[in-house]
Amino acid sequence: MPRPELLETFDNPYAGRDYEVHMDCSEFTSLCPLGGIEGDAEELALLKGGAPDFGTIRITYIPAAKCIELKSLKLYLWSYRNDGIFYERAVNRILDDLVATSKPKWMRVIGDFNVRGGVKSVITAVHGKPPATK
Amino acid sequence: MPRPELLETFDNPYAGRDYEVHMDCSEFTSLCPLGGIEGDAEELALLKGGAPDFGTIRITYIPAAKCIELKSLKLYLWSYRNDGIFYERAVNRILDDLVATSKPKWMRVIGDFNVRGGVKSVITAVHGKPPATK
Amino acid sequence: MPRPELLETFDNPYAGRDYEVHMDCSEFTSLCPLGGIEGDAEELALLKGGAPDFGTIRITYIPAAKCIELKSLKLYLWSYRNDGIFYERAVNRILDDLVATSKPKWMRVIGDFNVRGGVKSVITAVHGKPPATK
Amino acid sequence: MPRPELLETFDNPYAGRDYEVHMDCSEFTSLCPLGGIEGDAEELALLKGGAPDFGTIRITYIPAAKCIELKSLKLYLWSYRNDGIFYERAVNRILDDLVATSKPKWMRVIGDFNVRGGVKSVITAVHGKPPATK
Amino acid sequence: MPRPELLETFDNPYAGRDYEVHMDCSEFTSLCPLGGIEGDAEELALLKGGAPDFGTIRITYIPAAKCIELKSLKLYLWSYRNDGIFYERAVNRILDDLVATSKPKWMRVIGDFNVRGGVKSVITAVHGKPPATK
Amino acid sequence: MPRPELLETFDNPYAGRDYEVHMDCSEFTSLCPLGGIEGDAEELALLKGGAPDFGTIRITYIPAAKCIELKSLKLYLWSYRNDGIFYERAVNRILDDLVATSKPKWMRVIGDFNVRGGVKSVITAVHGKPPATK
Amino acid sequence: MPRPELLETFDNPYAGRDYEVHMDCSEFTSLCPLGGIEGDAEELALLKGGAPDFGTIRITYIPAAKCIELKSLKLYLWSYRNDGIFYERAVNRILDDLVATSKPKWMRVIGDFNVRGGVKSVITAVHGKPPATK
Amino acid sequence: MPRPELLETFDNPYAGRDYEVHMDCSEFTSLCPLGGIEGDAEELALLKGGAPDFGTIRITYIPAAKCIELKSLKLYLWSYRNDGIFYERAVNRILDDLVATSKPKWMRVIGDFNVRGGVKSVITAVHGKPPATK
Amino acid sequence: MPRPELLETFDNPYAGRDYEVHMDCSEFTSLCPLGGIEGDAEELALLKGGAPDFGTIRITYIPAAKCIELKSLKLYLWSYRNDGIFYERAVNRILDDLVATSKPKWMRVIGDFNVRGGVKSVITAVHGKPPATK
Amino acid sequence: MPRPELLETFDNPYAGRDYEVHMDCSEFTSLCPLGGIEGDAEELALLKGGAPDFGTIRITYIPAAKCIELKSLKLYLWSYRNDGIFYERAVNRILDDLVATSKPKWMRVIGDFNVRGGVKSVITAVHGKPPATK
Repeated sequence: MPRPELLETFDNPYAGRDYEVHMDCSEFTSLCPLGGIEGDAEELALLKGGAPDFGTIRITYIPAAKCIELKSLKLYLWSYRNDGIFYERAVNRILDDLVATSKPKWMRVIGDFNVRGGVKSVITAVHGKPPATK
Repeated sequence: MPRPELLETFDNPYAGRDYEVHMDCSEFTSLCPLGGIEGDAEELALLKGGAPDFGTIRITYIPAAKCIELKSLKLYLWSYRNDGIFYERAVNRILDDLVATSKPKWMRVIGDFNVRGGVKSVITAVHGKPPATK
Repeated sequence: MPRPELLETFDNPYAGRDYEVHMDCSEFTSLCPLGGIEGDAEELALLKGGAPDFGTIRITYIPAAKCIELKSLKLYLWSYRNDGIFYERAVNRILDDLVATSKPKWMRVIGDFNVRGGVKSVITAVHGKPPATK
Repeated sequence: MPRPELLETFDNPYAGRDYEVHMDCSEFTSLCPLGGIEGDAEELALLKGGAPDFGTIRITYIPAAKCIELKSLKLYLWSYRNDGIFYERAVNRILDDLVATSKPKWMRVIGDFNVRGGVKSVITAVHGKPPATK
Repeated sequence: MPRPELLETFDNPYAGRDYEVHMDCSEFTSLCPLGGIEGDAEELALLKGGAPDFGTIRITYIPAAKCIELKSLKLYLWSYRNDGIFYERAVNRILDDLVATSKPKWMRVIGDFNVRGGVKSVITAVHGKPPATK
Repeated sequence: MPRPELLETFDNPYAGRDYEVHMDCSEFTSLCPLGGIEGDAEELALLKGGAPDFGTIRITYIPAAKCIELKSLKLYLWSYRNDGIFYERAVNRILDDLVATSKPKWMRVIGDFNVRGGVKSVITAVHGKPPATK
Repeated sequence: MPRPELLETFDNPYAGRDYEVHMDCSEFTSLCPLGGIEGDAEELALLKGGAPDFGTIRITYIPAAKCIELKSLKLYLWSYRNDGIFYERAVNRILDDLVATSKPKWMRVIGDFNVRGGVKSVITAVHGKPPATK
Repeated sequence: MPRPELLETFDNPYAGRDYEVHMDCSEFTSLCPLGGIEGDAEELALLKGGAPDFGTIRITYIPAAKCIELKSLKLYLWSYRNDGIFYERAVNRILDDLVATSKPKWMRVIGDFNVRGGVKSVITAVHGKPPATK
Repeated sequence: MPRPELLETFDNPYAGRDYEVHMDCSEFTSLCPLGGIEGDAEELALLKGGAPDFGTIRITYIPAAKCIELKSLKLYLWSYRNDGIFYERAVNRILDDLVATSKPKWMRVIGDFNVRGGVKSVITAVHGKPPATK
Repeated sequence: MPRPELLETFDNPYAGRDYEVHMDCSEFTSLCPLGGIEGDAEELALLKGGAPDFGTIRITYIPAAKCIELKSLKLYLWSYRNDGIFYERAVNRILDDLVATSKPKWMRVIGDFNVRGGVKSVITAVHGKPPATK
């Protein structure tokens, strides 16, 4: 169950300048939704042999008043560990939660998932206009 | 024989935001057309020693109302396994079938084929205008 | 909680010849033991911010009468997902469980764990004498 | 259906010296056996969504009187394309067929298969004693 | 002696859509011109110890009515094998010959040559305007 | 304690032309701030087991009248060695100090930090408008 | 100043079996000795522009009764951070300290240091006889 | 002592078309200037232990009437071998000499130098406007 | 037509010590034999579209009284350029010619050929006993 | 002109234990001998366009009473910079000079030279018996 309440921020120490923060979180894991039903899937999955999903979440943003605290980000991503969720929903959900908490000038979230059955999936979602200096 | 009727879609879970989905299908295989004649080539080919083709199909799209269901995509690509088809036709055919089924805002299909006789071929076909945020 | 009862075997289809089977399971994950106490650590860990562990389990063996069934191996390794356990214990425990179930002529288990705090750990445990042909 | 009758040999052009021939066939593909039943699996598999297997077959041998003809080897490996067979059986079967046809002084066959569900499998089978010069 | 008469084309199977074809021919070889004189250099060169040139020819084009037939392209490139020619001339000559034969909407030829005396050379020539979708 | 007074410059030897200088300093190290308090952290950290940070500082600039002297840059970066500082502050501080000392036409500083707890951070800050020729 | 008193051990959880533990500590840093004099070099070095040394310490051992506690190892290696010491002495000193603390059946320490002036240095020291199973 | 008189050109064999020539000269070496004094540094340097500099010079240009002769370029770059010169000056000097000799439509020279004291330097200088087709 | 008379040697400058010389010749090319018939294949091949072969010849030896002269080795390998020859024969022939010319204490020749139809071939032939110090 | 008198040693700080020191000197350069004549070749070579040689010298040894001082080793290797010398002689000469100066228990010198005319050369020379623990 994603827990956005775990996310914390700190005051941007250089608010007078637009700069970019990038974080690669290479140890994201969640569970496949079972029978198309998302939610707490652990017990069902273990019985049926569904495979956990693994991937890297790549976050890039230009902070406004707030920066995302690194340790709280890890805890938040960890809260997907035993959750059954589709790739598309996970990436958009993470973007929504991070935007709501840190209100950045621009943010992009990429979910770069491991190969499943010979297919690698990468989902990219963006909030706000890309800055002129990109 | 390509079987587009195997393709399935599901409702885009974040239809309010343009986001990008990328899928690398690294285990695509088909057969060389024999004597310039495309179609079911297995029996002929086995007798004459024609080589199967291998490659990666890279699909990128911005979903509108529908997303492409991953397992059905694998089944659809699998239906090329015993089909004799030119690279150029295969890539454009896959793009046509995926567009017809999922009606995306934008889609690109790249066929990245293994070396044959010292030559590597890559075919790229696009449907729609590239989004402003690309 | 490791569940060795999930492991299944099938009859070695070529029992008359010594041959080698190698399996790389790159998506192993468990939890750090908390305060030196191993066991079901999820609730505690989530509160305290302990980091999950990730790694690759590399298994090599020479089958005797039985081979290890691949899907059951995945389920068994998955049962470490929410367990707090030290690296050294995990690798030796996996070796013990696999040996008890499949009684191989020789087996080696390597736990190749991701970097933690700038340190990468690799644990190697072996059962039986290495075959003459190694 | 593996067809060893496709294999051809030619006279070793340097029979007076022990030398080594190595061939990497990176485009091997077969089908998963369905419900544990090996055989011609195409129709069943297509209905049920079973995934084809892909891998590299690595063959090393010291020829005696005969060398394996390269094109016939490709045709032989191609005959596994629509066959449902376990990894362990495939590698040992290929070794048996090649040994029966070419009677080498020593031969090793390695099946190095693509990741399936996060697990990579490598099977190694050897015929004869490794040469002193290895 | 370059032999453009070896080049063949086939009708573009998807003429209604602009798409891109890329071919990497990694086994191009020609001879150094001797004493600044281009032409059939084999006999002279063998006597004087001039080194053959090796490289990769990378061709990218958007077909109009015709596509370049792959096998005929290999034969055409092979016709440089015993020809003494400068890098700059070879790349522009290949572009001219391919444009004359296939009349593409746009074409780029890159000659990416192996290191000679510690220097690597790459020559790039383009015909037509780059397409808007590039 | 960062010591910008260590930075030295020399007269730009080609002031009549805009050109770009790039420097990758791959051996940057500082300390984690303790309890959110930045400053001289060595004694506290050693007692509590906080981990030092490591990374690469990538500096790119277009010199105006002055170039940054390489050895003095190393000394300046070295002055962070026993300092507790956040990533965001370190990168912006380095940019400020370099701009103040060398007054470049344009400058970018990237802090590319090693993985910490499975997360890699990259911070990018820019001074001035990117040049037209970029 | 190296502080071996920081090293801690825990009871080997599988003392009945010889197994191997490998740890790569990629963020080792110390200082160059100044004027051939080893010791606390920070103040002197900063004045004279001596460069810090960086490298990876690779430790492999077969535990007897005790295993080395990972966090204490990091603290111990960290205690070299502001110490001026030669490569040869550092590696042998680390081996001595680890052997004295953990009394392993066999241990090897490799110091793999970054390039200095175009030269890369690797120092390898071993305690005890390599095990028969190596 | 750089000797631009060694540079030779030949007539552009395809002057009717703008095309690009790229040359990577990976074996450039010069000497550090001593005490900030540039010039013939060999004798002094050998006595004082200054380190030679190594790097790759990457040249890209669009020829007008003349192309740069490859062998003469190597001789010219070789004339820096025993010369003490700063990176910034070397790259701009090479650009000036090549432009004066070959009068290209556009030219870029990149000096990509080896790590010195943990810092890698890359200097980029350009002559003329980048072509529209870049 | 291989021309061993092109090979030259020079006196071993350190005949009192056994040392090893290794040469990687990465630009070997010959032609496929046509219809199983080896010999001068150029004219026939060009008509029928047979592909040239490319590969690397790796030579390692311990010189006795003579060393192989590098330029003459290149000329000798170049004499295979327009010759139709099987891989197995080429490697053994090269070994025979080099042994006859230079009479080394030990020599190994490896032919590491490019992929053909998805198969990579590596042929290894050895003359003499491997030295004790290998 | 090689100048072994530049080599310096220091007392082995751990003489009671056999340990191994490895040094990779990646920036070795010398000149080709001209017309088979070794010696000071700079002037002649510059006139005739002979190419300098580049490579890496890899030194591994087990010190007895003395260790090789790193800076003096660089100076010594630098003394080959303007010397015309064959690969075989250079490697054996370096081994002789290092053995005479440091009297190691065992030493190996490898000269790993850059590609020249499509050929890469590696020369390996050893002094003394390899240690039992290798």
